Amino acid sequence: MSGKEEIESLEKLLSKLDVKDLESVNKILYGIGCSKLEIPKIEAEDLEIQSYKFACPREQTRLPKITRVGLFQNKTPLETWAPIQEQRQALHNLAEKAIEAAAKASVNIFCFQEAWTMPFAFCTREKVPWCEYAENAEKGPTTRFLQNLALKNNMVIISPILERDEDHNDVLWNTAVVIDNHGDYFGKHRKNHIPRVGDFNESTYYMEGNTGHPVFETEFGKIAINICYGRHHPLNWLMFGINGAEIVFNPSATTGELSEPLWGIEARNAAIANSYFTCAINRVGTEIFQNEFSSGNSKPAHKDFGHFYGASYVAAPNGSRTPGLSRINNGLLVCEMDLNLCRQTKDFWGLQMTQRLDLYAKSLTAAADLYFKPQLIKKF
Amino acid sequence: MSGKEEIESLEKLLSKLDVKDLESVNKILYGIGCSKLEIPKIEAEDLEIQSYKFACPREQTRLPKITRVGLFQNKTPLETWAPIQEQRQALHNLAEKAIEAAAKASVNIFCFQEAWTMPFAFCTREKVPWCEYAENAEKGPTTRFLQNLALKNNMVIISPILERDEDHNDVLWNTAVVIDNHGDYFGKHRKNHIPRVGDFNESTYYMEGNTGHPVFETEFGKIAINICYGRHHPLNWLMFGINGAEIVFNPSATTGELSEPLWGIEARNAAIANSYFTCAINRVGTEIFQNEFSSGNSKPAHKDFGHFYGASYVAAPNGSRTPGLSRINNGLLVCEMDLNLCRQTKDFWGLQMTQRLDLYAKSLTAAADLYFKPQLIKKF
Repeated sequence: MSGKEEIESLEKLLSKLDVKDLESVNKILYGIGCSKLEIPKIEAEDLEIQSYKFACPREQTRLPKITRVGLFQNKTPLETWAPIQEQRQALHNLAEKAIEAAAKASVNIFCFQEAWTMPFAFCTREKVPWCEYAENAEKGPTTRFLQNLALKNNMVIISPILERDEDHNDVLWNTAVVIDNHGDYFGKHRKNHIPRVGDFNESTYYMEGNTGHPVFETEFGKIAINICYGRHHPLNWLMFGINGAEIVFNPSATTGELSEPLWGIEARNAAIANSYFTCAINRVGTEIFQNEFSSGNSKPAHKDFGHFYGASYVAAPNGSRTPGLSRINNGLLVCEMDLNLCRQTKDFWGLQMTQRLDLYAKSLTAAADLYFKPQLIKKF
Repeated sequence: MSGKEEIESLEKLLSKLDVKDLESVNKILYGIGCSKLEIPKIEAEDLEIQSYKFACPREQTRLPKITRVGLFQNKTPLETWAPIQEQRQALHNLAEKAIEAAAKASVNIFCFQEAWTMPFAFCTREKVPWCEYAENAEKGPTTRFLQNLALKNNMVIISPILERDEDHNDVLWNTAVVIDNHGDYFGKHRKNHIPRVGDFNESTYYMEGNTGHPVFETEFGKIAINICYGRHHPLNWLMFGINGAEIVFNPSATTGELSEPLWGIEARNAAIANSYFTCAINRVGTEIFQNEFSSGNSKPAHKDFGHFYGASYVAAPNGSRTPGLSRINNGLLVCEMDLNLCRQTKDFWGLQMTQRLDLYAKSLTAAADLYFKPQLIKKF
């Protein structure tokens, strides 16, 4: 345990400012055009629900394309050493309640945090028992479980899991499964960038994804998934934009004071740079493991790697964002958006028109060459 | 005039929180490792000076590479319709005082705001008299003027001007000139991405830059310049990083409530994504023009295009940042950094190692092709 008391949220602290000051602060920090969304009163135990919407002008030739997303951040309900079947069942139970709550809030697209069906155990570098959490993306128990809920609630569900690929020698992947609102398996995307940072020793378990940058054309919008560490890579975000994404989900698991100041920056910058919505979802709580492990940082071995600070949020193409969910509690963020805002923002800022892709295609091709020499200006 | 009273700064508002809350807020909003830098007391009329430094661990095999940058944001001192020679002279006088103040604070690299030798008159779309402000990058009056100050103060100076290229048919460019600490012209960089947004009708005056992404290896570090609107383009930032930049300056001129929420995000995201320091400099004040102009937004013609909100700041590779300068006053931001933090951050986060440049070289080459089809997954 970190031993210190975690603050509940940045927004709670800011709310101590007087109304006029808070208004000015919010305008600079959160942008304009995000407001509270009215939803029915929903009773859901241990689940804080917040709901927002982004403003978007009407157009003459296109109808609004209104979509509601649901971002679910949660603690693992059992001890990390609980048997796998029990752990998974407890998480499925938790998920069902969150999805039912989201359905009551008319959510169209629901997304979990990264590797949601298990503790985030990659810090341990143990293969046993964690590899046993891996499931077949198309036919595994979690996909089958969610197919029923997707069909029942007419909801697209994004389910980031540890994937076992039996068709290719049983290798593992960090994968997001997309299930459509008819309960059908729609496809999957494998995490493109794998961290080798401190406790995030994920390269022990799986390699860089081989699924490119797919955009899934659902009935509720064109969506993509940039899994966790991929949010540090602007090129990863860029390719989802180039492939036409209107909403990019960023299911994550991140901790610590080195990471937290980045959390509000990266997914939001991606929304701005690519004129799409981004949905950043972080795990919440502290997970304690049975066996101690070291963190590659000269400190003694220990049994947890710090507090997942939650704070999930949605950013709009124009750079506005919602407040974050709690840093300490399970939460569901419901956000309504008009996807027309993507193209409106492209027309306004012109970032795609002025992008000079041809220039950078050449520059990156040169830079990727083994014998590349940087454009360095020296005096002598 | 905007008619409303401008707030002085975000930080001033936040400082109304109690000490403990402010500490928590700052940690999330500004990261860790930035602290006040002690400098001698400097008397400088109408110039608010703030000074900070970033922490950086010592290494065993490399000495620290300590550099101090100075970011200067200023209002135009005369009315915009003052004769060109007078306007330029008044700006030179202001600049000299700022550079002398920076020298007293031991600044090594000094950078002005975008097009600092003139009002930001491109909103007018008038060619007369504004084109007359353009100067030869290598031998113009501003470069000659700054060469003396650079030599005298042993200071590298970055001077963003409107450039007249007499060797190529008198065309104009938006250009940053680099003068080294011996007073020698070192080189120039031309703005790569040109806005076509509302009042920022700059494509009326100059085209996209043809100087690539040069990094200037000065005695005080490897520096590059991403001019204004280029900060919206992650690929532009990326190529400066690939070419080895340790500090990238972003001299800008930006106004308005659509832009301000983005201001703290973009240069800072670039620092994180590319493991270098970024220095974001914005103009300050409201500039009023003699002839009215329209803004492409269905509103009546008017004589100003809003308040340049200053708020210049420095961001570090680890995502920490300084507070911003004032939103309303002339200011000099002095910031000390150890450039070793760049490579340390690369080693820590591994973003370059995990970047998959070869993948994106191929993806962008495909995307730039006229017959490109996006990777879109459809059900039927």
